[in-house]
Amino acid sequence: MRLPEKVTIIEVGPRDGFQNVKDFIATEDKKRIIDSLVSAGIQNMEITSFVHPKAILQMADAMELAMSVTYTEERLRKIALVPNARGAQSAVACKVGEVSYVISASEAHNKANVNRTIEESEAELRKIRETEPALKVRLDIATAFGCPYAGKIGKEQIYRLIGTGIQEGIEEIVLCDTIGIANPRQTAMLAADVRQRYPDTRFTFHLHNTRGLGLANILAAMQEGIDSFETSVGGLGGCPFAPGAAGNVATEDLVNMLDHMEVSHGICQEKLLEAAAYVRQTVHAELTGNMLDACKYENI
Amino acid sequence: MRLPEKVTIIEVGPRDGFQNVKDFIATEDKKRIIDSLVSAGIQNMEITSFVHPKAILQMADAMELAMSVTYTEERLRKIALVPNARGAQSAVACKVGEVSYVISASEAHNKANVNRTIEESEAELRKIRETEPALKVRLDIATAFGCPYAGKIGKEQIYRLIGTGIQEGIEEIVLCDTIGIANPRQTAMLAADVRQRYPDTRFTFHLHNTRGLGLANILAAMQEGIDSFETSVGGLGGCPFAPGAAGNVATEDLVNMLDHMEVSHGICQEKLLEAAAYVRQTVHAELTGNMLDACKYENI
Repeated sequence: MRLPEKVTIIEVGPRDGFQNVKDFIATEDKKRIIDSLVSAGIQNMEITSFVHPKAILQMADAMELAMSVTYTEERLRKIALVPNARGAQSAVACKVGEVSYVISASEAHNKANVNRTIEESEAELRKIRETEPALKVRLDIATAFGCPYAGKIGKEQIYRLIGTGIQEGIEEIVLCDTIGIANPRQTAMLAADVRQRYPDTRFTFHLHNTRGLGLANILAAMQEGIDSFETSVGGLGGCPFAPGAAGNVATEDLVNMLDHMEVSHGICQEKLLEAAAYVRQTVHAELTGNMLDACKYENI
Repeated sequence: MRLPEKVTIIEVGPRDGFQNVKDFIATEDKKRIIDSLVSAGIQNMEITSFVHPKAILQMADAMELAMSVTYTEERLRKIALVPNARGAQSAVACKVGEVSYVISASEAHNKANVNRTIEESEAELRKIRETEPALKVRLDIATAFGCPYAGKIGKEQIYRLIGTGIQEGIEEIVLCDTIGIANPRQTAMLAADVRQRYPDTRFTFHLHNTRGLGLANILAAMQEGIDSFETSVGGLGGCPFAPGAAGNVATEDLVNMLDHMEVSHGICQEKLLEAAAYVRQTVHAELTGNMLDACKYENI
């Protein structure tokens, strides 16, 4: 089995995870969770989202929180999600040097998600690049594997957005399975395809576990050379269209798979499980990750 | 991605699933669940276990139940688990033509599971073959991927038991990940290895989802040519060493993966989900499968 030697894990719990939690998580609890994740060796993290509190109340403390996370760039690559140029300005003001910007592969989902056409989203991306030229931007392509409204997504829709990203000087594209509908064959094909077509672009895959396929899809992507994945501590977050369903792939579940396959990642599983246990204790949400409930066998 | 065109799914919910349920399931409910699974297109099933009620009370109605399942062999390949020659006699008396017999790859687990040494278990297998020569026997090798007591399992332990099986005229060997510890690289290597070493033997993999790796492991096994898997409706059953953890791979989760990858299997997902919903309603156990809670998108 051909696998990368090393994988980059980008923790998205404090962003994608928290934004799906209804009860407000106190800013100091958010900060403690972020700290415990950094202590476990997490080196890449989406720490918050600079959205309007009217859109997502959970992120009302984005500026305060972002300013309180003061690790050096070597210790933690801090990323925030921004929906527009205003959010990008907030990121810069809070000394967050990198942001994720989302456009959906399907018009219908883009409309539902950010109330814009894809063209309008592309224009906003250009505006971010113009107004904050020093800010590093990564492009998340939502519903890249299937859309709850539009169904199957043609490759040309994905190519178009990748093209837009490259034109705007973006170096990293995140292909997101927003509703957890991807299957391993599809994931492998898309991975092979984009790597061949865009050899100079870095691709990260963001795969949900809604149908239990999260790790199988990551495995398929790794077999085609993808070595960067977004996951969430405890499996927090996920698909708002399927209440009760599993969310993101749990970071500790991916770490377990990688550890057993001897793929390195730089995270300490023991400390990560402590962080996940703290999340379970603090955050009012069901954790759907597997490792927290699995027995430990010291000798395996 | 190289995958088999067709996969055989062996439903083990009524055996491996039910035996892990504490509250007794009424015989008529068991029968209804079996019928609903057959209606959904399940063609291979472990319907019960002929064990002493003192060992597993849930299986006290094994004979009554087995005799009530009267599908033709073409419609349903009926299998029962037997721990000894006495159980094999019961199977024959109930017109069950095929049985699973379990030996653990680790001495410690075999002792804990059936209170015998591996040698004693092998002797009992010979006794079954002698006393019931017309009975078809498959050999389950438990803890083949790791043992809660002994840790890692050497390949020679697995080869020894496969050798015993072949010597006894057994055509199908089931490699079982009893505690859900397998990883995809290990699964792929073991699959490739046994297929090469024993080209005339049929291998079925029985993989648990304790650490969320069930489907990833099945994918890895399929990529190495394994085309027969045991799963359980709703994800019932699993690892008694890890209460609260996920159990077997849910049959409907595997069907979903296969459907989306266009691997055929002969099961109707819609009816299977109805059967799983009936199990959720009837059986006092938490179902850990994913598909029951996932949104349906008609257009994907």
